[in-house]
Amino acid sequence: MDHHFTCPRGFPICFLFLFAIICFGEGKRLLVIPVDGSHWLSMRAVLEKLTERGHEVVVLVPEVNLLIKESKYYTMKKYAVPYMQDDLLQRFRLLGSNPFEEVSFPAMVIGAYRTLMQLIELNSVSCDNLLKNREVMRYLAENRFDALFTDPAVPCGVILAEYLSVPSLYFFRGFPCNLELAVSKCPDPVSYVPRCYTAYTDYMTFRQRLLNLFVSLLETTLFKILYSRYQEIASELFQREVHLPTLYRNGSIWLLRYDFVFEYPRPVMPNMVFIGGINCEEGKRLSQEFEAIVNESGEHGIVVFSLGSMVSEIPMKKAMEIAEGLGTIPQTVLWRYTGETPPNLAKNTKLVKWLPQNDLLAHPKTRAFITHAGSHGVYEGICNGVPMVLMPLFGDQMDNAKRVESRGAGVALNIIEMTAKDISEALKAVIYDKKYKENIQRLSELHLDRPIHPLDLAVHWVEFVMKHKGAPHLRPAAHDLNWVQYHSIDVLAFLLAASLLALFISMKCCMFCCRKCFCKSGRLTKKSKSKSH
Amino acid sequence: MDHHFTCPRGFPICFLFLFAIICFGEGKRLLVIPVDGSHWLSMRAVLEKLTERGHEVVVLVPEVNLLIKESKYYTMKKYAVPYMQDDLLQRFRLLGSNPFEEVSFPAMVIGAYRTLMQLIELNSVSCDNLLKNREVMRYLAENRFDALFTDPAVPCGVILAEYLSVPSLYFFRGFPCNLELAVSKCPDPVSYVPRCYTAYTDYMTFRQRLLNLFVSLLETTLFKILYSRYQEIASELFQREVHLPTLYRNGSIWLLRYDFVFEYPRPVMPNMVFIGGINCEEGKRLSQEFEAIVNESGEHGIVVFSLGSMVSEIPMKKAMEIAEGLGTIPQTVLWRYTGETPPNLAKNTKLVKWLPQNDLLAHPKTRAFITHAGSHGVYEGICNGVPMVLMPLFGDQMDNAKRVESRGAGVALNIIEMTAKDISEALKAVIYDKKYKENIQRLSELHLDRPIHPLDLAVHWVEFVMKHKGAPHLRPAAHDLNWVQYHSIDVLAFLLAASLLALFISMKCCMFCCRKCFCKSGRLTKKSKSKSH
Repeated sequence: MDHHFTCPRGFPICFLFLFAIICFGEGKRLLVIPVDGSHWLSMRAVLEKLTERGHEVVVLVPEVNLLIKESKYYTMKKYAVPYMQDDLLQRFRLLGSNPFEEVSFPAMVIGAYRTLMQLIELNSVSCDNLLKNREVMRYLAENRFDALFTDPAVPCGVILAEYLSVPSLYFFRGFPCNLELAVSKCPDPVSYVPRCYTAYTDYMTFRQRLLNLFVSLLETTLFKILYSRYQEIASELFQREVHLPTLYRNGSIWLLRYDFVFEYPRPVMPNMVFIGGINCEEGKRLSQEFEAIVNESGEHGIVVFSLGSMVSEIPMKKAMEIAEGLGTIPQTVLWRYTGETPPNLAKNTKLVKWLPQNDLLAHPKTRAFITHAGSHGVYEGICNGVPMVLMPLFGDQMDNAKRVESRGAGVALNIIEMTAKDISEALKAVIYDKKYKENIQRLSELHLDRPIHPLDLAVHWVEFVMKHKGAPHLRPAAHDLNWVQYHSIDVLAFLLAASLLALFISMKCCMFCCRKCFCKSGRLTKKSKSKSH
Repeated sequence: MDHHFTCPRGFPICFLFLFAIICFGEGKRLLVIPVDGSHWLSMRAVLEKLTERGHEVVVLVPEVNLLIKESKYYTMKKYAVPYMQDDLLQRFRLLGSNPFEEVSFPAMVIGAYRTLMQLIELNSVSCDNLLKNREVMRYLAENRFDALFTDPAVPCGVILAEYLSVPSLYFFRGFPCNLELAVSKCPDPVSYVPRCYTAYTDYMTFRQRLLNLFVSLLETTLFKILYSRYQEIASELFQREVHLPTLYRNGSIWLLRYDFVFEYPRPVMPNMVFIGGINCEEGKRLSQEFEAIVNESGEHGIVVFSLGSMVSEIPMKKAMEIAEGLGTIPQTVLWRYTGETPPNLAKNTKLVKWLPQNDLLAHPKTRAFITHAGSHGVYEGICNGVPMVLMPLFGDQMDNAKRVESRGAGVALNIIEMTAKDISEALKAVIYDKKYKENIQRLSELHLDRPIHPLDLAVHWVEFVMKHKGAPHLRPAAHDLNWVQYHSIDVLAFLLAASLLALFISMKCCMFCCRKCFCKSGRLTKKSKSKSH
């Protein structure tokens, strides 16, 4: 018996360790460069699962950030940045404050652009500080990682992957629009793939297709504006002229938070993995407080209302309009709102500072979901089969709202123009018109009937890239062609030149023959004429 | 206790029944229209698994066929056809007999075309007979199916799905080339996606890209030739002019026997599911006979050699050349061959009428695989990590061979030109040059590291289509655009016209202004001139 394998630290730990090795092979090391904000939340779920599966996860974050907090699931490595928490908060808040202001279209565009540029500037400052932080860079160089996992909306991780020569994966959705398509050289026909912020569907009128083309032409300019500072940062780091799209193309896998029950079908590339709905967990039991509210709602049930964490305050006039609309339905409304209570708040409406959104949506008594149409919320609505009233505020939310509406699973409202009557009618429609419930139920069934949960799929591909040092077999040869070659312009030009040459030669031949004939006949005529004389 | 649920037919059956209902929901009914030949073999595996999961499978086949036999896994419904087993056999054999003949290129093309047309004619006769078979058609109309599963290489199932208004799935690979891309309106850049039968890789020279463009232009013509008879059959059935590609577009899901360790990465569509390697099962224990041969091979191990079931006889001169080549290596060669034994067969070579190919490839003593590069064989080679010597005969086998060779996992030979020395050198290379083993091993690892087995994935999607009555959320809006709209020709033409008009108007304005100015100055000059006089 003494010869048996013995376990120095007691059986359970040893068993777990052995189990981990047998089941998952050797644990790998993953470096994570996240982007702050709601994007981080789904990414975190992947990291937690990876840690549970025996891998070591290091998250690299600026010391000033919003949502990225310490956790037992990962090691957090912080780096200094030359701005304060207040700067960051203020710039983030600006994103969520504009939507209620009634401003002219050009003023809105300029305002949105300015807010965005301020955020981008902050990100690029953070990136510059990271890449110039000797201590952190030494740590990264000394600690070999098997892969780098990043949200490529901010290209800092993309640059770092190249610098460390580590294979990388991207976790992405939405902004900047179509980044994944442009980078992957994925064909993207303007005739039926609507561009971001147009709020078009995949069935467009002639006018819409025309505008869609214009917007698609603007995208390239947008990328240039967004990333010019990063191009400089990268060029400085590598001491050579860097082409950022080329760096982006080294990404092995795109984990995209898309699902085609919600997105319009369009061409994709083999290294794109679709994990839309990754954030939607199974509904957990409600706390006593919320359970009581839901039970008291009686046969009418409840409506869940949240405009997301970016909106802390709504202008009072608008808040009162909303409160009035909410008061017209018999359902109990749970409104997540941190602003001043509107004086006309009806008895059926309960303000809360926070609510367990997914768990409430999963409750059978939930009749409708009023949302700002952020992608996380929309997926929770789809996943739980709850029809939606959509009040998009900014960014991709207009498009998200249009998509849900085009599927007949919700009603979209214009946050600036909507009245209490509009809100009331929209709510009554999605609650009492059966087709909305049927449509969202159908979408939900399609969405949930998948061979593997999106979270497991994401974990699989991160492990794949760590294990196989990338996924070179999924890299299209298109990445090694220039624009002329990719579009076969050289081949077509050659064919055109050859055709023209052939035409020219045949014309010359014809003319030569004709001249021969005419001259001959001319001479003959002359001859015969002279003879006749 | 008496009130408990009781089981009238005994516990085990009842338990199984309940288990099936609990686990898989209600069993569905699937109608299958297969295509005869090797394609059927992988499709059968899917059907077997579906039956195991409680679904009812009905396979509709002509009474004269090659490989589709009765099974406990499905109900076979036969229909009469006006040709005999010998006709079929003879036409199939023709496919495999040409490759050894040394003929001129035009003669080869004409020969291949004639053989193919004879097979197509037979298939269309079979289809016509099915659709005109009143008894079978009545049976199909009376027995409601939840989905139709077909190999769309022959469009009979496609037509029948439309006729029965049943959602359909396609099980497809290879022939006719790029059918799935053309039907799905999937962009397919000629600059890096090599066309069938060109044996190009995804990295092409200028000349290759030019020829690739020509071949791609020929594809449309090929589809028309192949399917004109079916267009007539369908038009006759529906009593209206039928556009076959439109019928094809009603297919919900394409189950494609592709995997990107073997295929070149290119754009795909969301309703394409990749199940390459579906045929590769885990290697089973060898029978005593084969186990003995493998064990006797000693340290040198064995080489597995099969040119597939289509080749029964090789011209003696070529067979002797092969036998001579095989005799030069120390490995034992297991050669599946039904023809006359070459007199110079070396001692190390054992002829067998049949061999358990996958099980032999899975054996650790197998050093190399000589194959005709049919897709099934190549996937078994990849799956088991055995380097290959490829002797492509016809169809897509040249492309397959080129692909394996381009991955550095095998050596391709020209079956007509190869000498005993070529065979010997190719075998020694793949056995002793470590890079071949390393490359195939890497491909094998990439191929096998997948979140779900291709067979389970195929079963999932068949069940999905049966349950949800199709997959309409994966149908691109492109299918409802005409050629002009899809390519935005109308939008571009409008922009061109608008630009020309703007140019014309501005030129007119300029000319008008200039004229005004000139006239004025002209008049002034005149005036001043007259004054000076």
